[in-house]
Amino acid sequence: MNKLKIGIVQQRCTPDRKDNIEKSIGFIRKCAGEGAKLVILQELHSDIYFCQAEDIKMFDLAESFPGPVYNQFSSVARELGIVLVTSLFEKRAAGIYHNTAVVFEKDGKEAGRYRKMHIPEDPAYYEKFYFTQGDLGFTPVSTSLGKLGVLICWDQWFPESARLMAMAGAELLIYPTSIGYESTDAEDEKERQHNSWMLSLRGHAVANGLPVIAVNRVGHEEDWTGVTNGQDFWGTSFVTGPQGEIIWEAGQKEELYKVVEIDMARTEAVRRIWPFFRDRRIDAYDDLTKRYLD
Amino acid sequence: MNKLKIGIVQQRCTPDRKDNIEKSIGFIRKCAGEGAKLVILQELHSDIYFCQAEDIKMFDLAESFPGPVYNQFSSVARELGIVLVTSLFEKRAAGIYHNTAVVFEKDGKEAGRYRKMHIPEDPAYYEKFYFTQGDLGFTPVSTSLGKLGVLICWDQWFPESARLMAMAGAELLIYPTSIGYESTDAEDEKERQHNSWMLSLRGHAVANGLPVIAVNRVGHEEDWTGVTNGQDFWGTSFVTGPQGEIIWEAGQKEELYKVVEIDMARTEAVRRIWPFFRDRRIDAYDDLTKRYLD
Repeated sequence: MNKLKIGIVQQRCTPDRKDNIEKSIGFIRKCAGEGAKLVILQELHSDIYFCQAEDIKMFDLAESFPGPVYNQFSSVARELGIVLVTSLFEKRAAGIYHNTAVVFEKDGKEAGRYRKMHIPEDPAYYEKFYFTQGDLGFTPVSTSLGKLGVLICWDQWFPESARLMAMAGAELLIYPTSIGYESTDAEDEKERQHNSWMLSLRGHAVANGLPVIAVNRVGHEEDWTGVTNGQDFWGTSFVTGPQGEIIWEAGQKEELYKVVEIDMARTEAVRRIWPFFRDRRIDAYDDLTKRYLD
Repeated sequence: MNKLKIGIVQQRCTPDRKDNIEKSIGFIRKCAGEGAKLVILQELHSDIYFCQAEDIKMFDLAESFPGPVYNQFSSVARELGIVLVTSLFEKRAAGIYHNTAVVFEKDGKEAGRYRKMHIPEDPAYYEKFYFTQGDLGFTPVSTSLGKLGVLICWDQWFPESARLMAMAGAELLIYPTSIGYESTDAEDEKERQHNSWMLSLRGHAVANGLPVIAVNRVGHEEDWTGVTNGQDFWGTSFVTGPQGEIIWEAGQKEELYKVVEIDMARTEAVRRIWPFFRDRRIDAYDDLTKRYLD
């Protein structure tokens, strides 16, 4: 199967979870209706980006698997016969919560999950408060459509995670994300940050000769604690080929779904002309497991 | 010293070494005349890109250090009081040759050297024939201007080498390169390759919060064995800031020198908002020293 049709859902979220999920499912149906075999949702798509503030009550949004949200998306995958990449707030135990991507097979069963490994902590991105860092490693999820290298948002800045997924046989790199501007940032800084985000992800495509799919949240979300002016998530979900070339890119403001076709055969063609995996100096990489070399 | 003036020399080369070196030195003088404290030359700037074909005679171009070419550039650095990054063909012993960047201090003494670690081997880039892979690791060269993370051409595709240089304290990533189009490539493939090259290097800037400087060869060079139609080196030397933002970029055809000022204080500012080094999951990176995970 050389051509793969991938559905992407870029949406706004409100505090009304039921409404968010209905909207996701509506878009998923449209993707499947246009032939998508794989559909990808943005990070934490069922809720507002609750990490804008540290608020104990928000842990109520988490669920143990399988829980109601998990089951709802499992059913949709089965009903439509698609592979579905979701991003859920997992309650593993009291005091252990994860930012977890669950991948459902066409039959609705769980194909596998990835727990976010790199956890940010910045003003308005208080994820180290909410999420225990992942402990499942950088292992692709094997599905009927191939091995999916699912990573999540902050992971996007780390070439190491893309590389390890590729080395483990990932055929696609997939990033559900929730990234945006702080309202106080200057315009030129906003532009640099957005460009950096795309450069980083496109760079992973080049380094590993793999298509990359980023699915980002869109729209303004208020800070319910009133500390900041809220976040503007920058949308611009996009798909690249294995040379980092943009195949499709969404706008910064629109809520949308889109089905994009990827030619999976290009990976091998590109890796033949640029055989980076052949030439990695693995005898000289030991220090990559150090924090800093001082 | 927050502002650093860097001189870049992008030039054509012919089989006339004396002429190539005179041209380099002329441009270096101009850079110094405009206030450059650090000047960077392209990969193997004293000669044609002799790796276009496997030809035993080409080993005559190598020299043991210190040799005549080494001494000539050492003298220029001393005379002008600049730090100079050169790229030389090092004869280490009979049968052991390296692609080596030698960095000269303001007083003409060698500040340090880097031997190209990742060696390509593609049609018209027969470097595994000429060069023994480097054995000095990814160690920045300490100079009076700071620690220079000097890497060479094919290294540009490997996030690992940029990361290790950054972890060892490099304040700039510097890539002398000789990269171009094969004459038989289609136009769209040429464009993808050129974009990939910039994406990869700009991605290293983002991942490591460091400025990146790429200095590339320019112009057409014939294949003296008559097997191919020769190579068109694509110039477009460029400088980025620590978010991968382009500060300056050369054209694809012109021979030139340019002095570019970099604000070295931005590295810390960027790393404060994007503290990737804090969050690297070094407990989960062991497999980076493997070839592949199968």
